[in-house]
Amino acid sequence: MARYAIGVDFGTESGRAVLVDVSDGREVASHVHAYANGVIDDKLPETGQKLEPDWALQDPNDYLETFKRTIPAVLRESGIAPADVIGIGIDFTACTMLPVKKDGTPLCFLPEFRKDPHAWVKLWKHHAAQPEADRINAVARKRGEKWLDLYGGKISSEWFFSKVLQILDEAPHIYRAADRLIEGADWVIWQLTGRETRNNCTAGYKAIWQKKEGFPPRDYFKALHPELADVVDTKLSREIVPLGAKAGELTAQAAAWTGLKAGTAVAVANVDAHVTIPPAQACQPGIMVMIMGTSICHMVLGAKLVRVPGMCGVVEDGIVPGYYGYEAGQSGVGDIFAWFVENAVPPEYHEAARKAGVNLHKYLEQEAAKQKPGEAGLLALDWWNGNRSTLVDVDVGGLLVGATLATKAPEIYRALIEATAFGTREIIEAFQTNGVPVKRIVAAGGLPERNPLLMQIYADVTNREFAMVRSAQACALGSAMHGAVAAGTLAGGHRDIFAAAEKMGGLKETVYKPIPENVKLYNLLYADYQRLYEYFGRGANDVMKRLKAFKRAWVTGSKIVLPADRGAAKKARKAGRKVRRRK
Amino acid sequence: MARYAIGVDFGTESGRAVLVDVSDGREVASHVHAYANGVIDDKLPETGQKLEPDWALQDPNDYLETFKRTIPAVLRESGIAPADVIGIGIDFTACTMLPVKKDGTPLCFLPEFRKDPHAWVKLWKHHAAQPEADRINAVARKRGEKWLDLYGGKISSEWFFSKVLQILDEAPHIYRAADRLIEGADWVIWQLTGRETRNNCTAGYKAIWQKKEGFPPRDYFKALHPELADVVDTKLSREIVPLGAKAGELTAQAAAWTGLKAGTAVAVANVDAHVTIPPAQACQPGIMVMIMGTSICHMVLGAKLVRVPGMCGVVEDGIVPGYYGYEAGQSGVGDIFAWFVENAVPPEYHEAARKAGVNLHKYLEQEAAKQKPGEAGLLALDWWNGNRSTLVDVDVGGLLVGATLATKAPEIYRALIEATAFGTREIIEAFQTNGVPVKRIVAAGGLPERNPLLMQIYADVTNREFAMVRSAQACALGSAMHGAVAAGTLAGGHRDIFAAAEKMGGLKETVYKPIPENVKLYNLLYADYQRLYEYFGRGANDVMKRLKAFKRAWVTGSKIVLPADRGAAKKARKAGRKVRRRK
Repeated sequence: MARYAIGVDFGTESGRAVLVDVSDGREVASHVHAYANGVIDDKLPETGQKLEPDWALQDPNDYLETFKRTIPAVLRESGIAPADVIGIGIDFTACTMLPVKKDGTPLCFLPEFRKDPHAWVKLWKHHAAQPEADRINAVARKRGEKWLDLYGGKISSEWFFSKVLQILDEAPHIYRAADRLIEGADWVIWQLTGRETRNNCTAGYKAIWQKKEGFPPRDYFKALHPELADVVDTKLSREIVPLGAKAGELTAQAAAWTGLKAGTAVAVANVDAHVTIPPAQACQPGIMVMIMGTSICHMVLGAKLVRVPGMCGVVEDGIVPGYYGYEAGQSGVGDIFAWFVENAVPPEYHEAARKAGVNLHKYLEQEAAKQKPGEAGLLALDWWNGNRSTLVDVDVGGLLVGATLATKAPEIYRALIEATAFGTREIIEAFQTNGVPVKRIVAAGGLPERNPLLMQIYADVTNREFAMVRSAQACALGSAMHGAVAAGTLAGGHRDIFAAAEKMGGLKETVYKPIPENVKLYNLLYADYQRLYEYFGRGANDVMKRLKAFKRAWVTGSKIVLPADRGAAKKARKAGRKVRRRK
Repeated sequence: MARYAIGVDFGTESGRAVLVDVSDGREVASHVHAYANGVIDDKLPETGQKLEPDWALQDPNDYLETFKRTIPAVLRESGIAPADVIGIGIDFTACTMLPVKKDGTPLCFLPEFRKDPHAWVKLWKHHAAQPEADRINAVARKRGEKWLDLYGGKISSEWFFSKVLQILDEAPHIYRAADRLIEGADWVIWQLTGRETRNNCTAGYKAIWQKKEGFPPRDYFKALHPELADVVDTKLSREIVPLGAKAGELTAQAAAWTGLKAGTAVAVANVDAHVTIPPAQACQPGIMVMIMGTSICHMVLGAKLVRVPGMCGVVEDGIVPGYYGYEAGQSGVGDIFAWFVENAVPPEYHEAARKAGVNLHKYLEQEAAKQKPGEAGLLALDWWNGNRSTLVDVDVGGLLVGATLATKAPEIYRALIEATAFGTREIIEAFQTNGVPVKRIVAAGGLPERNPLLMQIYADVTNREFAMVRSAQACALGSAMHGAVAAGTLAGGHRDIFAAAEKMGGLKETVYKPIPENVKLYNLLYADYQRLYEYFGRGANDVMKRLKAFKRAWVTGSKIVLPADRGAAKKARKAGRKVRRRK
């Protein structure tokens, strides 16, 4: 008798439910719900309260609506009986967090807090907590906190405690009114099951939790802010539940929302990127999964704990049980191509694409595919959105070198693709060099489906085969797999995530294989990419930081204080020359 | 009684005559003639003979037609009696040269040579003689030829002997059939006067002639090619006539072509850039004249002979008598802006410009004018067309640093303008540092009229006042001034070019003055421009050359041979590190 599971993927702009067959992962039905309030980055709904720059909020009601709309829809579409749906899992953007009352009510649902921006959900891309992140890092370095190295030496402004500290700094009354501070991922599970759980994936990657050491010590939090000393014990929880575990069962209320049966197994929450490892059948060391979209998230399992410079984080059991889950990322990929297409392509290509009946990305890709590696004489550093990988530096910028009066848009488009591929190679080599082998690669996300040239270039640049996840909805499928594991074998589900991956995951037949002559040429170009990477990224010439400082000074109206070259004075001394210093 | 002179300016696509009042330089009439055959860079007229890449030819008949069309037209338009026109002068692009018979007949006019590309005029931008230029430089360096330093250490592929040697290499029968090898400038004067003269401006700047030393020695030419040994004595002339001298008088035939009177004084030929010094009233040391268009030509007079790295040339009496005339140049300026506008501006700006009823350059300029120095956080190296100034290197390429996902087209447009301004500052500082003072600047050419933002940025970047030549036709006016000098005072003309400049030249009232706060900011940005200039231009990282080598290899189908870093091995040794060498 066929059994089914439902996965719900909570994205940035919408939520999607997929109903899949537990025996083979076949997607029977799917439904998308666009959030009514989407990304709130200008003003609050209803009150119209203005937000400052770099803010990005969400409305928790949009998450509830996602359950109410999408699950009934997939049941209807598929005609599957609710009783045959044995489990449900979810994945979420992270860190996306909110302050709630003891019973789970978001503060922003309460009239007295509704007009306060800090009462709302802080979305992953809320970037206004940079001063707090700076403090978190400075205090950690000063105290010699060991965990810092597990996060590439730098905690991001996007992460949990940066956001918590911003609430405490800017809205202490909200901090005090919040009985719990919780990831959106865990909050929606709470809504389904009626009880609060905390998954080890968001805790590990976003809230500085490690299986053996737990959270940072009380003294550290106290050093950050006296009132933060007991944040873990008063507003979080030390009980962290591993992925694949059952969080609970669907309440009668949640059953009414969704049309599923009360008592249906609900899995512990997951993160959208990490949940794609099982669908990619990459539940063992050596296989890197790359979620390729506006940015790239690189994940790979390792058998031992090592430190890799610039990785986003390593968490024991953080992706699948029994392994260290390593995560790294490139902050700009599809975003850079989108910038280029919107800001730097002349009308003739827009018209040509229209005539050819394809979108501009596709047209440029086709034109770029006619070129050979290096033929255009261009090279770029893919830092349009900073460098989140081995440099962990938001203050570097994009670079294009080699343009001539004959340079054409498709040539620059290809150079940008190549640059992001070089960026990925940099990350792979950092893993390899530091003892985390990368043998095969599986791509997921939107880009691999849309851009075969990009996939071929990545294969050529990294000299590795690129497979592709079979499912176009890998996140939701991964969530459904976790739902099937939470249901267990007795209910017709799976023993563990490894078994689920074997049955329900899979790859496309298409595999991009490196073309030997391109590999050779790209090795030469990569050597130059590395030289520029080193020069602009590691202090020999901090021109990018100075340019950012300039820009910032104009935006904020403050005095221009330029960072001096970190390496210049030293080098000049070595070379026996004088270096002019500007005061 | 009013007296008039006519100046004829032979440009790349057309010729222009201007009839001016000798007493005050007032332009009474002007007329343009577009060359029928324009720039011949694809195939020969009539025979359809295909040309190789980098070729650029012209048809001498277009020059004759210019006289026949434009001079009658300005006489007609002005109503001035031919008897009141006391002199005529011309200026020409250079080096633009052709092979002719003893009587001045171009070889390409003769049926037996007409289908041979080498029989035609080689236009200044004919770039196919690079191998010959390389040989000219290598042999000169090997022999320790002293004159090499007077030309910035490098003879260009555009110059006279590069072109001559290409004829000898590739078409020895044409070389042998040519009784004379001559600049187009001197050839048109020959057609007017019936006698061959050679002006000291093209000889000095383009044909390695110096007032004291003359041409390079016979042995040098012999070392280049045995058949070239006697080229000066057999096909050129050692009699070089100074600017401002009278070349001769209008023949009856030329009088019939033009409607002028036979016997009218004709001045020795001039070069288009150099002839603008008198209209700019810059006939004394310390005033730099910049001809600003697709590229920039910088000219300044000096009282003594010094060597300035990367200058195009220094010639005694080469611009006006009694001074050393220094010339430098930026190979890409307006060309870069045109590239940008054609290749990198998205449709929204095209539409906005259309709506605003201005061209796209003007629209981008207006948008860019709203930004402050450094506000966009962008910096560029203006090497889209190589670097013809202090690096004398065609193999460097353009660079843009600091782009982000928020970067907009007008910001890049401004960064490109700023980069060309930094390039000019680099040239000015090279002159200053080496003993050629630059106190004031006068701008001429198309750009200063069209782009006030550009002029302000140049003033701010160089911290110097920028004046502008009054005449919009400065070249033709300069030629007319030389015509008035050739006519002499008895005929109602001028004693010398200094007197002519005083009476007939002049500046606009508009002067661009540096804005102190911008000067300070640009000093900071310029320091970074210089760092990048040094790093990419002087061997620390030859990535630009490697990229060009890549490109060239694909175009020619040859093996990829990459230039190694000139400075890398040395630096690595100093730093005590190993450098990997690629074979």
